[in-house]
Amino acid sequence: MSVRSIRLMSSLAVIGAATALMSAVPTPVRADEGMWTFDNFPIQVVNDKYGTHIDQAWLDRVRGAAVRLRGCSASFVSGEGLILTNHHCVVGCVQDLSTAENDYVKNGWMPGVREEEATCPGQTAEVLTDIIDVTDRVLGAGAGLEGAAFNAARTSVTEAIQQENCAGDPKLTCQVISFYRGGRYALYKFRKYDDVRLVFAPEFQAAFFGGDPDNFNFPRYALDVGFLRAYEDGKPVETPNHLTWNPNPPAEGDVTFVAGNPGSTSRLLTMSQLERLRDQSLPIQLIQTSELRGRLLEYSTSGEEAKRVALDPIFGLENRFKVYYGQSGALTDPAFMAQKREEEADLRQQVAADPALMQRIGDPWADLARTQIAARDLFLPYYQLEARAGGGSTLYSYARSIVRAAKDQARPVEQRRMSAAAIAALNRRLAGEVPISNDLEEIYLSFWLSKTREYLTVDNDQVKALLGRESPEALAERLVSGTRVGDPAFRQWALARTPAQLAEADPLLAFVLANDDAAKAIDDQWSAAVEAPTALAAERVAQARFAAYGSNLYPDATFSLRLSYGQVKGWTYRGVTVPAFTYIGGLYERATGSEPFNAAQGFLDAEQQVNKDTVYDFVSTNDIVGGNSGSPVINAAGEVIGAAFDGNIHSLGGSYGYDGTLNRSVTVSTAAITEVLRNVYHQPQLLDELGVD
Amino acid sequence: MSVRSIRLMSSLAVIGAATALMSAVPTPVRADEGMWTFDNFPIQVVNDKYGTHIDQAWLDRVRGAAVRLRGCSASFVSGEGLILTNHHCVVGCVQDLSTAENDYVKNGWMPGVREEEATCPGQTAEVLTDIIDVTDRVLGAGAGLEGAAFNAARTSVTEAIQQENCAGDPKLTCQVISFYRGGRYALYKFRKYDDVRLVFAPEFQAAFFGGDPDNFNFPRYALDVGFLRAYEDGKPVETPNHLTWNPNPPAEGDVTFVAGNPGSTSRLLTMSQLERLRDQSLPIQLIQTSELRGRLLEYSTSGEEAKRVALDPIFGLENRFKVYYGQSGALTDPAFMAQKREEEADLRQQVAADPALMQRIGDPWADLARTQIAARDLFLPYYQLEARAGGGSTLYSYARSIVRAAKDQARPVEQRRMSAAAIAALNRRLAGEVPISNDLEEIYLSFWLSKTREYLTVDNDQVKALLGRESPEALAERLVSGTRVGDPAFRQWALARTPAQLAEADPLLAFVLANDDAAKAIDDQWSAAVEAPTALAAERVAQARFAAYGSNLYPDATFSLRLSYGQVKGWTYRGVTVPAFTYIGGLYERATGSEPFNAAQGFLDAEQQVNKDTVYDFVSTNDIVGGNSGSPVINAAGEVIGAAFDGNIHSLGGSYGYDGTLNRSVTVSTAAITEVLRNVYHQPQLLDELGVD
Repeated sequence: MSVRSIRLMSSLAVIGAATALMSAVPTPVRADEGMWTFDNFPIQVVNDKYGTHIDQAWLDRVRGAAVRLRGCSASFVSGEGLILTNHHCVVGCVQDLSTAENDYVKNGWMPGVREEEATCPGQTAEVLTDIIDVTDRVLGAGAGLEGAAFNAARTSVTEAIQQENCAGDPKLTCQVISFYRGGRYALYKFRKYDDVRLVFAPEFQAAFFGGDPDNFNFPRYALDVGFLRAYEDGKPVETPNHLTWNPNPPAEGDVTFVAGNPGSTSRLLTMSQLERLRDQSLPIQLIQTSELRGRLLEYSTSGEEAKRVALDPIFGLENRFKVYYGQSGALTDPAFMAQKREEEADLRQQVAADPALMQRIGDPWADLARTQIAARDLFLPYYQLEARAGGGSTLYSYARSIVRAAKDQARPVEQRRMSAAAIAALNRRLAGEVPISNDLEEIYLSFWLSKTREYLTVDNDQVKALLGRESPEALAERLVSGTRVGDPAFRQWALARTPAQLAEADPLLAFVLANDDAAKAIDDQWSAAVEAPTALAAERVAQARFAAYGSNLYPDATFSLRLSYGQVKGWTYRGVTVPAFTYIGGLYERATGSEPFNAAQGFLDAEQQVNKDTVYDFVSTNDIVGGNSGSPVINAAGEVIGAAFDGNIHSLGGSYGYDGTLNRSVTVSTAAITEVLRNVYHQPQLLDELGVD
Repeated sequence: MSVRSIRLMSSLAVIGAATALMSAVPTPVRADEGMWTFDNFPIQVVNDKYGTHIDQAWLDRVRGAAVRLRGCSASFVSGEGLILTNHHCVVGCVQDLSTAENDYVKNGWMPGVREEEATCPGQTAEVLTDIIDVTDRVLGAGAGLEGAAFNAARTSVTEAIQQENCAGDPKLTCQVISFYRGGRYALYKFRKYDDVRLVFAPEFQAAFFGGDPDNFNFPRYALDVGFLRAYEDGKPVETPNHLTWNPNPPAEGDVTFVAGNPGSTSRLLTMSQLERLRDQSLPIQLIQTSELRGRLLEYSTSGEEAKRVALDPIFGLENRFKVYYGQSGALTDPAFMAQKREEEADLRQQVAADPALMQRIGDPWADLARTQIAARDLFLPYYQLEARAGGGSTLYSYARSIVRAAKDQARPVEQRRMSAAAIAALNRRLAGEVPISNDLEEIYLSFWLSKTREYLTVDNDQVKALLGRESPEALAERLVSGTRVGDPAFRQWALARTPAQLAEADPLLAFVLANDDAAKAIDDQWSAAVEAPTALAAERVAQARFAAYGSNLYPDATFSLRLSYGQVKGWTYRGVTVPAFTYIGGLYERATGSEPFNAAQGFLDAEQQVNKDTVYDFVSTNDIVGGNSGSPVINAAGEVIGAAFDGNIHSLGGSYGYDGTLNRSVTVSTAAITEVLRNVYHQPQLLDELGVD
């Protein structure tokens, strides 16, 4: 079984794509809102509201225990490098360690002795050690320049700063991060561990109980926990600065902090931008994701092998669908939109009342409204021909990379955009063995082709060029069955060839090549007519916010370490009140025996031993998003009381704004983890390491 | 091949469901807008604008030649009862007349001699002969009453009027129709012919060339034409009052009239109603239709039989999808919504300026806004548990009818809602043999169950009751494989049984019965909290319109005879200009040989004979919607120049408002029909009857 649960995991690709829209935070900052950087946390606000005694030392301890994984968050929870995170952040590793004989995904990974802890391929653990303000240097490097020269200067100074601070030391990561849409730049310096081993993972069905129906919902009965350990020189890393494990559950109303790496938010979009997302981008994505979901679900009923290969793509699709649905839910909520409208009106009024400011920033709202007209016109061709080209086909994605590299290398040296290093990296990617299902590839390609014809119409020139005289189904079948791009050796061979050679060598490469100029043209149009003016205008909106509200703001999420605060609290929606806690006993009541509501075998076996009154999962008002998966949930004393693994459906509106009455984080409690380590999975050595007797 | 193309056909079920939202027309009436009744046609406006000489005699002639079919429109085009309509309005008949040896759907129906014209089962042709105002009598019957007594009095007077005017004469149809949301009532009296025979139908692939990709699009190359003939006493009916056949195409800018029966529009919804449709109803329908479409499309690839049984449901789904998509396109168009907002503001201002009027109608806009809050809360349970219950399953639909009848009959006689006649009608329906695919039934039921769980969540009491401990897939499989409801004899047997007997007799009946009280409860809630207050408020909005704008308004569509006017004209959208005409030669250029762009065999064979310069299809600004399929398109001289068969994608916004710059009707020209009857299908006798040499 290949599994990739993504819920609150962050995709770096997504983050990259969204940066053009990043911006600062709306105001006034309401209760418990905010993904605060550790150097600008509202200590006094929190202490006043919750009667806590947070101070800089408390913050430093938490920061030093927080761990960034690939796409996830985590924390040290013992002095010997033990890392707490989510099961869905380690399941890829569990899969990698599984064999035909030992299905650790199904049965869990629990060697019980440290010698058998096994390295997770590709995983790293990074601890933020320093935050250094480099705003002046970065801004100074671009001053007076524009266009390509400006971009080059910025890139150059960023690389220089990173190089100076980490210079070649493989134990360090240095990253210059933009905050507040370029309002501030900071160097984030990390201590990096690249031998990260798997310590414990429960059975998949324990971690993902409830499957898609329960995903982004609550009440919840998921043991979404996994333990890793950082090693160096073959030995566990010493981590005296770790979070103390508190095996007791919080009470309703208790204050909670979440330290982690939220991936991406877009809370400063203007009304015209939000309306276009609501009216066009999200509906198209919801509709197309739904039809593809239907195709894959039906395909998966056609046999055991079909079910197996479709499982992972279906998880991914259903997760994406819910994210879009939750985002759409916020933008179609009259109250949510009224609040956004009010905030925008307030900011515009403040600008209008300050002639100097108005003179400086102009009217970016009007500029963005005009940009939406262009975006509405260009979105469908851009989406179909460029952004979603290939429809998720792995073969297509390889083919496009090869074609674009060949076109780049065919240019005079001074006009090439891909460095030798980039070509080498691509070569390594192309060399990787990746399982490919021709059935799925045909579904992806024919779906994409038929939707492109449907949305751009039969009479569109690009559609005519794509299809020629073939049907989407026949063309997809011909390309998939005829291409050799599925073979790593062929891919590497192809990377060294000219466009003409590619066109001759392979039908899929020929197809991509024949349509690539048109795709690049629409990409350029989108970039010029939408992205560029959006970035310029959004920067001016951000300046207006700083001018109007000062610096007591949190920046949009950028997969960098943040701290949110809140409290344990249920919520009420449409007359239904959802309590803050679930208990282990509820799992047995919810379990029907039918997938995905079949309890894991370990839990069934232990029903008489386990304490059913133990708090299982709980919700809190903490403001988190994708990327926060695995984040430690921390009490006022700085002890860890759980691992955040999900948000409720309303939290997905957190992409655009935080609503404290509805947004909730979902956490698996240390109380439950302790109980199951003791009475379900029998891991005394782990309990001992966690300091639990 | 079972085929049901529905495009502009009207579903009476849909009409019935939509009546609660029907209302009068927005103002100011813009260019070419309106579905006018024949007793209130804006003669002077049209004559002034187009230099025509329309008068009452012209209108009477057109009315007398216009024919209403089941769900479609048509017209007499010879003195011997020959009827012009669309292929997709007769394809069900073609299917009924086909045998294993003779597939007339594929090959066309063209006997060439009158003796072989064959009766279309269930088809009728109705010609409107009288319009009698009965407003006072209907309104008087309800005066002073309310609730059930009011409804009973209205029903009783309606039935009395119909009975008095048509009393038992099988050659007449009498129907009291509500216009302007109850502002006016009229008796429509029809001459009815119930022996309607099939004269000519081209090959399916000629009529439906381009399939779903071209549906609701233009340029178009579809020969969507069929001929019927009305018979009486075994002889063709004499129809001296028919439209003269003009074999010449119109020119760009020529005036065009369309006489037919638009099914249903909702142009007077208030902004709060439109916004809820945009934000909730349409997205849910688009999303769910898309996923089901994906399931059926993938299922249809699993084999020849699967392809065959899924063809008709996929056509239906794809057509519905496009209708929702087009409607959504209007409601997410900033300009369209701005126009609607302006119209509403104007009307409200006029009311505000007239204290007496304001006193009389109050603030129905505020009432409707409040009602939307209730509707947003109730919509998902209502949609999942009642409106879409069963997800399209035929077995479920039968089972629910049987269960509801049994529950009704179990009541004391005086509390029953179903009359003996209604039970008898249900019995006839249950007795009918209908092909049922168990595969599709399982897809429908499991899809519905899984979406109900997804949208109402696992923790909803009704969801728990529906699923028990089973998965959606297992439950659907158990119900479909175990039920005998697919057997007409069993259905009739079941109709005479008590609820307890049903629960014991059959798993599907037991399932429906067990969940029916909850479904009825949410239906009652929806009715009380949404439908009732909506009807009351909408009536007051209609009164405000009459008061503000007088009677020079057209009523919303009610599948009653209307006349629209317009002109032959292309359109421009997002920089792309679409010309008004296509030519037969274009078919050969568009044909790729790949479904659905494979030209019909007749056209391929005749490529050298047919005149490729003949106008094929054309668009005009006429304001039509579903139900208008087959409507004669008429020139200023009262001659028929085509049969309307579709609208462009923008015309689907016509449900909510007419935009003359974009909305277009799509018509197959008499020029093309004449040409293909001559040089493709070789039908000299038909040409002769049409008066073409």
